[in-house]
Amino acid sequence: MTPVARLPFVSSSASFASPEIPRFSVVATAPVVGMVGAGQLARMTHQAAIALGVHLRVLAVGPKDCAAEVCADVRFGEPRDDEAVARFAQAVDVLTFDHEHVPAALVAELERRGVIARPGSHALPFVQDKLRMRERLAEARFPVPRWAVPRPGHERDDVVAFAEEHGWPVVVKAISGGYDGKGVWVVADPPGVADVVEKLSGIRWFVEQHVDFRREVAIQVARSANGETRSWPVVQTVQENGICTFVVAPAPEVDRAVAEQARGLAENIAKELDVVGLLAVELFETDGVEPLVVNELAMRPHNSGHWTMDGSVTSQFEQHLRAILGWPLGDTELTAPVTVMANLLGGSGADAEQVHRRIPAALADPGVKIHLYNKVVKRGRKIGHVNVCGDDPETARQRAARAVRILRGEETP
Amino acid sequence: MTPVARLPFVSSSASFASPEIPRFSVVATAPVVGMVGAGQLARMTHQAAIALGVHLRVLAVGPKDCAAEVCADVRFGEPRDDEAVARFAQAVDVLTFDHEHVPAALVAELERRGVIARPGSHALPFVQDKLRMRERLAEARFPVPRWAVPRPGHERDDVVAFAEEHGWPVVVKAISGGYDGKGVWVVADPPGVADVVEKLSGIRWFVEQHVDFRREVAIQVARSANGETRSWPVVQTVQENGICTFVVAPAPEVDRAVAEQARGLAENIAKELDVVGLLAVELFETDGVEPLVVNELAMRPHNSGHWTMDGSVTSQFEQHLRAILGWPLGDTELTAPVTVMANLLGGSGADAEQVHRRIPAALADPGVKIHLYNKVVKRGRKIGHVNVCGDDPETARQRAARAVRILRGEETP
Repeated sequence: MTPVARLPFVSSSASFASPEIPRFSVVATAPVVGMVGAGQLARMTHQAAIALGVHLRVLAVGPKDCAAEVCADVRFGEPRDDEAVARFAQAVDVLTFDHEHVPAALVAELERRGVIARPGSHALPFVQDKLRMRERLAEARFPVPRWAVPRPGHERDDVVAFAEEHGWPVVVKAISGGYDGKGVWVVADPPGVADVVEKLSGIRWFVEQHVDFRREVAIQVARSANGETRSWPVVQTVQENGICTFVVAPAPEVDRAVAEQARGLAENIAKELDVVGLLAVELFETDGVEPLVVNELAMRPHNSGHWTMDGSVTSQFEQHLRAILGWPLGDTELTAPVTVMANLLGGSGADAEQVHRRIPAALADPGVKIHLYNKVVKRGRKIGHVNVCGDDPETARQRAARAVRILRGEETP
Repeated sequence: MTPVARLPFVSSSASFASPEIPRFSVVATAPVVGMVGAGQLARMTHQAAIALGVHLRVLAVGPKDCAAEVCADVRFGEPRDDEAVARFAQAVDVLTFDHEHVPAALVAELERRGVIARPGSHALPFVQDKLRMRERLAEARFPVPRWAVPRPGHERDDVVAFAEEHGWPVVVKAISGGYDGKGVWVVADPPGVADVVEKLSGIRWFVEQHVDFRREVAIQVARSANGETRSWPVVQTVQENGICTFVVAPAPEVDRAVAEQARGLAENIAKELDVVGLLAVELFETDGVEPLVVNELAMRPHNSGHWTMDGSVTSQFEQHLRAILGWPLGDTELTAPVTVMANLLGGSGADAEQVHRRIPAALADPGVKIHLYNKVVKRGRKIGHVNVCGDDPETARQRAARAVRILRGEETP
């Protein structure tokens, strides 16, 4: 593990000298965190930054990015534009990320110029390149599905051979760029292989075992630049069409040994990959030899941790800031026996205007905590979430689900 | 009680048409709340507005106002400048206040022009004019201290006569403009009367009974434009030199009947004065005939409710927004048996730069929740607060007090 330096509290006065931002001048030692990307994760990070007295600056693609609507300090630029990212990074104390779109090579170059990026360029490839993630985790003997990279020109034969060895169906995954079920195909038979191989022409991909899972779970750990780690309990994630619809925290009826294993896995992966900030580990829970198998990683606040905003002493957004600033981490205790998070997906009856008109109806249940992103609505896009805390997972889930149905216009209160 | 209309969800598209604010254009039906004043209350309201998808616009006096540092939509103007407030109010769905400095007459004029102000011009005088508050509450038979307005030219004699009837010491209060112990004098004897009468030349004031209280408590209630009310439990407030230093929520060892009486008082005062939004009622708890006597009122989020940010399902800032928008109110249940709020006051070793450097030391206790305002520091000014939740008031109070001492440089961890 590369040793990590404690944040030196570089005076950020340089960043205040620019005439374009005369407003931010009161507390010159407030740490300036620059977040590349201005989506909902940046938006919610701003809520935590306000409390901590941290100055959050975001790099937005455009004025409609949902964090650009609420942050005072917004710069514009594309995450793959070297110039724009370099300009953005030069005057911040710590650079961090709302997504995985900044090339690790660019981050490495910025680090050579003295920028402190968290997570750093050595960790980012493992979330930008799923094949490198699989290889590295397997090398370090973490439980991962079996996988293979087909030989160029022999893709169909190699996938069929892999499936015959490990069983149908198999999973074909794009090496980069996938999220919310995009970039992942479950292939049931040889004609399906032919289809997907054709579709993926020109894209790097690999094939892996379809894990026969009982359910999907996830665990989040924070690792501070000071080396401290803290995790939340393992949660259950419920997916529909590849998109997470519910998170139940903690996961109901988890075997204590499995919960401990999940925690150990997450903390060890964070150390192994030298992650600074938040790490989400999505896992398959199985009835097989390996009760937990790693599916995906994310090195930032993550949808599976939105429940912490209302259900834990420290939210994932506050924890991410504390971790990247090298500060002590916050208590991850629960504030209620169970919290259920339900995602609000846009589309059909759920355009943003209609959702806003329906807020009062959804809030008629006084325990419903709404988090709206004020995003441009596209079908299936996450435009908000609802948390409900309670004593019993099923009741909390029904209440959260009902609030989401009301917001989507699928139920009249 | 004047009937209050449900917020009609006026389309706020007019407010988006201005070319000076091209950034806020995604969700035209997001309600626009305009808050006059950009202090810490506006700053913390922004955190709640982000979650609810409410567009918060603040009227700041200058760029160093602590909400101006974190809000995307900041306009500049003085709260007593009719023109500036009128311009600010014209394009918001609901107008609300971070302080009591906007003259009620101006608010009344805006209401005649169609502005929805919450609280409204009929309620505001009772927090802008302490004499009117005393008169109105006494008329409605709420328990208040005895008071008298001295005759012009006979101030000294009248105060001495009042003291001889009700006992020394007496309290002299400026009718408007006081806060944090300012504008209030405890006078022990006739020479003290002479001093204060001289000091108050040209200022309107009155004299009142010094209540022999056991302790000071407070209660907050929200009243929605839809008529619903919800209160939090009564809390104990600890003052030093007239400034609140701690709040213990709920107040320890409160008699159940007293707790119910406090709640009834708060809800009835809110109805009587037709408050829409939050109302804080500061009370003296006594061993006398009236166990609770009303001291002060505030019609906005209030220092005595900062504990709700970490200790209640719904924070006072979220509740204020829900109330003024006519939305259903949120659950006011506690998330922990006890929460202690400790104010962080500036001055001596506590300038903002030093406070920032000391954050990591204060956060070494993982349950400490820091809320910094990034304010220009003046001696004795509130520049932040700390919440600690726990099972036992004394332990929580010690932990909160320690975090504050560390932030002020009075204790090395």
